[in-house]
Amino acid sequence: MNAVKESAAAEESAASPREGAGAPQVSGGSTTSVESWLLGKLRRVLGNPPVAFEVRGGSQVGPEAEAPVARVIFADRATLTSILADPWVRFGDAYSEGTVEIAGDLVAMLETVYRAGSISARSGSLWRRARSALRRHRVNSLAGSRDNIHHHYDIGNPFYALWLGETMAYTCAYYPAAQATLDEAQFAKMDLVSRKLQLKAGESVVEAGCGWGALALHMARHYGVRVRAFNISKEQVAWAREQAARAGLAGQVEYIEDDYRNISGHYDAFVSVGMLEHVGVANYSTLGQVARRCLGNRGRGLIHSIGRNYPAPLQPWIERRIFPGAYPPALSEMSQIFEPWNLSILDVENLRLHYARTLHDWLARFDAAAARVRAMFDAKFERMWRLYLAGSEAAFTTGTLQLFQVVFAPGESNDVPLTRAHLFVR
Amino acid sequence: MNAVKESAAAEESAASPREGAGAPQVSGGSTTSVESWLLGKLRRVLGNPPVAFEVRGGSQVGPEAEAPVARVIFADRATLTSILADPWVRFGDAYSEGTVEIAGDLVAMLETVYRAGSISARSGSLWRRARSALRRHRVNSLAGSRDNIHHHYDIGNPFYALWLGETMAYTCAYYPAAQATLDEAQFAKMDLVSRKLQLKAGESVVEAGCGWGALALHMARHYGVRVRAFNISKEQVAWAREQAARAGLAGQVEYIEDDYRNISGHYDAFVSVGMLEHVGVANYSTLGQVARRCLGNRGRGLIHSIGRNYPAPLQPWIERRIFPGAYPPALSEMSQIFEPWNLSILDVENLRLHYARTLHDWLARFDAAAARVRAMFDAKFERMWRLYLAGSEAAFTTGTLQLFQVVFAPGESNDVPLTRAHLFVR
Repeated sequence: MNAVKESAAAEESAASPREGAGAPQVSGGSTTSVESWLLGKLRRVLGNPPVAFEVRGGSQVGPEAEAPVARVIFADRATLTSILADPWVRFGDAYSEGTVEIAGDLVAMLETVYRAGSISARSGSLWRRARSALRRHRVNSLAGSRDNIHHHYDIGNPFYALWLGETMAYTCAYYPAAQATLDEAQFAKMDLVSRKLQLKAGESVVEAGCGWGALALHMARHYGVRVRAFNISKEQVAWAREQAARAGLAGQVEYIEDDYRNISGHYDAFVSVGMLEHVGVANYSTLGQVARRCLGNRGRGLIHSIGRNYPAPLQPWIERRIFPGAYPPALSEMSQIFEPWNLSILDVENLRLHYARTLHDWLARFDAAAARVRAMFDAKFERMWRLYLAGSEAAFTTGTLQLFQVVFAPGESNDVPLTRAHLFVR
Repeated sequence: MNAVKESAAAEESAASPREGAGAPQVSGGSTTSVESWLLGKLRRVLGNPPVAFEVRGGSQVGPEAEAPVARVIFADRATLTSILADPWVRFGDAYSEGTVEIAGDLVAMLETVYRAGSISARSGSLWRRARSALRRHRVNSLAGSRDNIHHHYDIGNPFYALWLGETMAYTCAYYPAAQATLDEAQFAKMDLVSRKLQLKAGESVVEAGCGWGALALHMARHYGVRVRAFNISKEQVAWAREQAARAGLAGQVEYIEDDYRNISGHYDAFVSVGMLEHVGVANYSTLGQVARRCLGNRGRGLIHSIGRNYPAPLQPWIERRIFPGAYPPALSEMSQIFEPWNLSILDVENLRLHYARTLHDWLARFDAAAARVRAMFDAKFERMWRLYLAGSEAAFTTGTLQLFQVVFAPGESNDVPLTRAHLFVR
């Protein structure tokens, strides 16, 4: 992440005596002092989080004034050296391979790293630099999108069923109260979305990117609407159709294996939960055009997406190993969906801490199912996914990532709610 | 407005036979046909709203298939010709001078004009053109801001007291129910803002641009907070201080006659209601820096402002005669306040229809006090202000203007509400 790199660069020239003075004369330095220097350098690159770094059976560096939150243990010096060459990708790979281990709480450790890196993110110049670096956004073509989605979502429904809960909703849940369970919170999220859309019996809804189909079923079952739900993941669509048939709702909910760009027809509501992350900023105007075409000059829309407080690239290991082509936008970028088409933003809610809690619940279930994950795939896959879930929880807890729910309507329409009372009083 | 001009240009070459066939041979045409042609041209420029246009005692043009919503009557042909040269400024001036009169409902007439003009605003190309035209934003310097604010807000407290209601709040009210009065709705707005800020007794609040001071008093009286409220309008600050003294709250609320850029100190909450319209996009980052400096890495903020669905210039007559230096931003522009400083947007609410209702209530009071306004100023001033209030009501009713309330917090802070239940259940 740029923020972290920035911080490291600034500190590189002003390293503390303890960490800087041990700089090695590689030819004459002892094994220990070279290792200490390498460990210290990695710690500085990460913004000096309160974490201890050590080579197994060798040197260790860590915070001076406080107990470390966790210990990061490198199997050997070669691992450490390889990570230093490209920490933002190689750390995740080494963790997956098992050549890095964490003693202590993985999520807490990742939180300290995110927090250490965000300190310099408060400067206006950083934001401008991030913006200019992002000018050349990746374009997700129809074929490219299909490949990217296949990479993540088509690795097997039984795997996701191990830890997503009974709804199979793979997006931020909504916990109306702290004691809510994951399944209750996913139900509450689908209901919140339905209420924000003010769905009425007999209306028609189009959904762009429907995952395993739970939201479409919820809206049909509890609000009496007809839904056409689009998705380019073959496995998800197959699962969703089976659920609809089993629930006796196949006549009310149609799952269509196709790209959002190919949506046609007119609808009372347009909804997209957790797809925008895969659309790419260059296509936002096209997405807005699709929504405008679907709604005409009436109706309501809702887009739910991971976002950022300012434009910045996705963590590169996540982008490379987990979500190719993904990008969480800042609100200034999301506005490119709405502004070209005179779509009026009515309501934005930031559910960041709900996503931290959702990921916490997913990770607990994932950990409980770890042996079955290893049996389905292998140990490397299991570690990779644990790091992804733990890192995501840490990112939402520390404010590195946001979750925006945006309600909108055609700019000409006055059929919009005057207050939000309908969200709370039914 | 660009939107209207665009529409007119498109239709210029495809005028309907009735309006196009009468195009004059100026040398040989009758008085009537020249006038008809001029009236038809103006109507086309305005996007052919369902309104009749006539020269007093002379020609008339209007909608073919429907009854006109109102009749616009020009005193003579010279007035009509002068308006055609620069309709977006001259129409307002001629109305103020009394050489244009409206037979029928002024607000309804203006609504049809806004609606006719917005039809072409749905095209993506228009938005891009508006953005590029807006690249060179006006800079509001310290001295320039003072002049601009003086022009509008220092024309006499007794004038505003005629029609603003007992709170003297000169910003969008919040009508929890349709039968709420203006004063009730202004109280409800101040309370909504206080709840969104989650004010607790003993906390400190800084207000940027406090008008006649009612919000600061409300927060001190009902939430037990201390408030420092900034404003560069001399007349408003004098009035506010008198109110605080009268209410026995002078020890809890301090009104400071100074620019928001000079705010110092640390506070639990930052609030600005109805000032952003006068800040200028070029200064948004500075405003965000002030808010960040006031809050540090904790606390909450709220900015309430007139806005747009996409970047576009303010109606030029309003900008020239009523609000010099004013600009209502799109959300993409407002995000320039928050993004450079890692301020996290928690909540955005669009209260557009509440502002239409507020203006409707103001206009009714203004009309009831028309004789006193004329006695304080003159007939031209009274007509100018009626047009401004009526045009603003029409702009909010038609979606030409928006009203955004944005709640934010420092990106590192997790002391943020999990749900919005606190806004409804107390």
